[in-house]
Amino acid sequence: MKAEIVAIGTELLLGEIDDTNATYISRELTTIGVDVYLRHTVDDDLGRIVQVLGAAMRRSDVVIVCGGLGPTPDDLTREALAQVTSRALQTVPGAEQHLRQFFAQRHRTVTENNLKQCQVPRGGQLLDNPVGTAPGILVEHEGSTLIAVPGPPPEMREMMHSHVMPYLRDQLHERGDVPLFTRSLRLADIGESTAAEQLADILDNQTDPALALYASPGEVRVRMWTKAESQSEANKKLGSLEQLVRQRLAEHVYGVDHETMEVALGQALLAAGATLAIAESCTGGLIASRITDVPGSSRYFLNGYVTYSNESKQRLLAVEPELIARHGAVSAECAQAMAQGARLASAADYALAVTGIAGPDGGTPEKPVGRVYIAVDDESGGVIRQFDWPGTRSQFKRRVSQMALNLVRKRVLGLA
Amino acid sequence: MKAEIVAIGTELLLGEIDDTNATYISRELTTIGVDVYLRHTVDDDLGRIVQVLGAAMRRSDVVIVCGGLGPTPDDLTREALAQVTSRALQTVPGAEQHLRQFFAQRHRTVTENNLKQCQVPRGGQLLDNPVGTAPGILVEHEGSTLIAVPGPPPEMREMMHSHVMPYLRDQLHERGDVPLFTRSLRLADIGESTAAEQLADILDNQTDPALALYASPGEVRVRMWTKAESQSEANKKLGSLEQLVRQRLAEHVYGVDHETMEVALGQALLAAGATLAIAESCTGGLIASRITDVPGSSRYFLNGYVTYSNESKQRLLAVEPELIARHGAVSAECAQAMAQGARLASAADYALAVTGIAGPDGGTPEKPVGRVYIAVDDESGGVIRQFDWPGTRSQFKRRVSQMALNLVRKRVLGLA
Repeated sequence: MKAEIVAIGTELLLGEIDDTNATYISRELTTIGVDVYLRHTVDDDLGRIVQVLGAAMRRSDVVIVCGGLGPTPDDLTREALAQVTSRALQTVPGAEQHLRQFFAQRHRTVTENNLKQCQVPRGGQLLDNPVGTAPGILVEHEGSTLIAVPGPPPEMREMMHSHVMPYLRDQLHERGDVPLFTRSLRLADIGESTAAEQLADILDNQTDPALALYASPGEVRVRMWTKAESQSEANKKLGSLEQLVRQRLAEHVYGVDHETMEVALGQALLAAGATLAIAESCTGGLIASRITDVPGSSRYFLNGYVTYSNESKQRLLAVEPELIARHGAVSAECAQAMAQGARLASAADYALAVTGIAGPDGGTPEKPVGRVYIAVDDESGGVIRQFDWPGTRSQFKRRVSQMALNLVRKRVLGLA
Repeated sequence: MKAEIVAIGTELLLGEIDDTNATYISRELTTIGVDVYLRHTVDDDLGRIVQVLGAAMRRSDVVIVCGGLGPTPDDLTREALAQVTSRALQTVPGAEQHLRQFFAQRHRTVTENNLKQCQVPRGGQLLDNPVGTAPGILVEHEGSTLIAVPGPPPEMREMMHSHVMPYLRDQLHERGDVPLFTRSLRLADIGESTAAEQLADILDNQTDPALALYASPGEVRVRMWTKAESQSEANKKLGSLEQLVRQRLAEHVYGVDHETMEVALGQALLAAGATLAIAESCTGGLIASRITDVPGSSRYFLNGYVTYSNESKQRLLAVEPELIARHGAVSAECAQAMAQGARLASAADYALAVTGIAGPDGGTPEKPVGRVYIAVDDESGGVIRQFDWPGTRSQFKRRVSQMALNLVRKRVLGLA
């Protein structure tokens, strides 16, 4: 079943807000195996809305329109649905009474504008909105279904949950469509093109289950999907493919589906019954912030030091002034000393330290902007790595944090 | 000048990530007076990309394509630009050498896949990408301009800034369009509806310059815009309106345009010649990370403590065990003691401390999830505030960090 999503709203096209509704609706439809082929964002212009809806209706089995159902004159979705289906707007019996009740309960008066919210194109139906005043609309027309949901995210989500998803599930069932199942492997410390080469023959010869690679800063994901009659059949197919991918990329896989690096590290520390302390220079607290994004992280995370100045590295982490004088604050030696200092001061099982040059200033020919040293220290020794990641300040911080979390994770698991 | 934006990427249509690039590009174009009429999101399917690009090209003066420029077989933007303009792909002289250099600097080897990134449709040009491997592409064709930028947000932003915006400004100038000028005031510690009430008469009677309010977590923005022949004419018009708005909302305005709260705080500290230390519990390092997002922050930021455990609050910040036993770690008393401890240990002029319950666990009837205490300490005394912000963990951390940065900013400026 093919779907398109049309988001209505000038504020979206001005870039004032992210279109998180489109993301949410896409994810919901994908989950049940509806294929979202196209999304559009249109401003509050009746002609353009009708044009986009018309083209979408001709291409797709279902078109979900989000927004433009409010009571103000620039809410045009209702009128657009009427025009694109060439049907007159009609008031739904009983709807007006329901609306008047909703307003009375909230001690507000119904305006003329509100009453137009009780109208649908002839033959269509209103979708009840338990959390707001704007009902949704569903119209089946020439082999396609148009569904309009309100723009405020809580109202949209409620209506997707109580009306749209059950309707789509029924449609899928009637059509005899086989549901879609997905699984993603998350990789670290490997580039998208290297991963693609390692999997080249699988990528070239895939049919079902299928797979694709997606890259984001510091991370590559292998997304696998299959159509199957049941979860257990899907598990079998996706499991075989996962095994194949893991054979090639084992050391890089750190998590599955929504398991972030900070979650994976937390699991490793919990399983080992170990605690962690952190000393950050160039990442400025980002690593600690990511670790503490995980609920329950207080069970393994003891404390973090953001030692931006040399003086604070000496005072808080007992780094010798002579060491900094000889090797510099951005050096393997300093990273190692910071990690050791953090571990001993915190009585932690593991300590992680990073020191580097985030830029844009502070680089030298020997140590350019983007240079970073990451060290892990524990009772039995430690590990130090050096990287060069020129880029923007936030890119750099994000990448370093990802690699640093991964390094301590591997150390806890005995892989580094 | 009319523009459309086309985002390429199956992961967008699967709902795996928000399309923040489309938001960013929309906002940038709006800022200079380019009208964004439509946006589309297309999956990695050559036929559909070509179809959407073709329709957009016929409707609009400029089409910005984002994503699909990577080195893998499902990166199809390059090929789509060639098909929709009926031009062959040709390698740009010199580009290959540049790419090989980029890879050599990072100690990576160039693959065959990477080399296709040096190709553009005949007559087009490559747009240099200083922060990644995928260059952009610009092709003028039959009265419309197609511009492709890479999907990774930092690369997209860099390319918008250094290539796309200058090109569009030139185009606007050549067409003799009266340029649009905008200015935004950023507000903290006030809700959208309260701000709207304060500005009600201005909002109701606006013509040119115009203004509107936009809310995001922890922040409200007043966006003002005008069409003017010159920057100085625009400055005059926007300046008068800004003055009017500031008269009503002075104490809430912390920055203009892209001045984030961490930048505003940095300016206040630099102007005062003062230094800052931070002690964080529930924000887990986010405040320090935001402060160090600002280049040059080492001039005023000394160090941060992420004291998640009670033991670390005692050891690093000299908080008395009796104080925690009596009032709890989440208390005004503990926040104040953390701030004082951080200031004295760091010999900083100001110290900021936060302690609270991010949830989902750890709440009690007296201190529910969302409770937070923020304290600033300096030589002449200090200030403590209490808030209740239930919400998701990341919403909570973001809001607390914003309010905490604002509180220390106001303290430095003598406003709190």
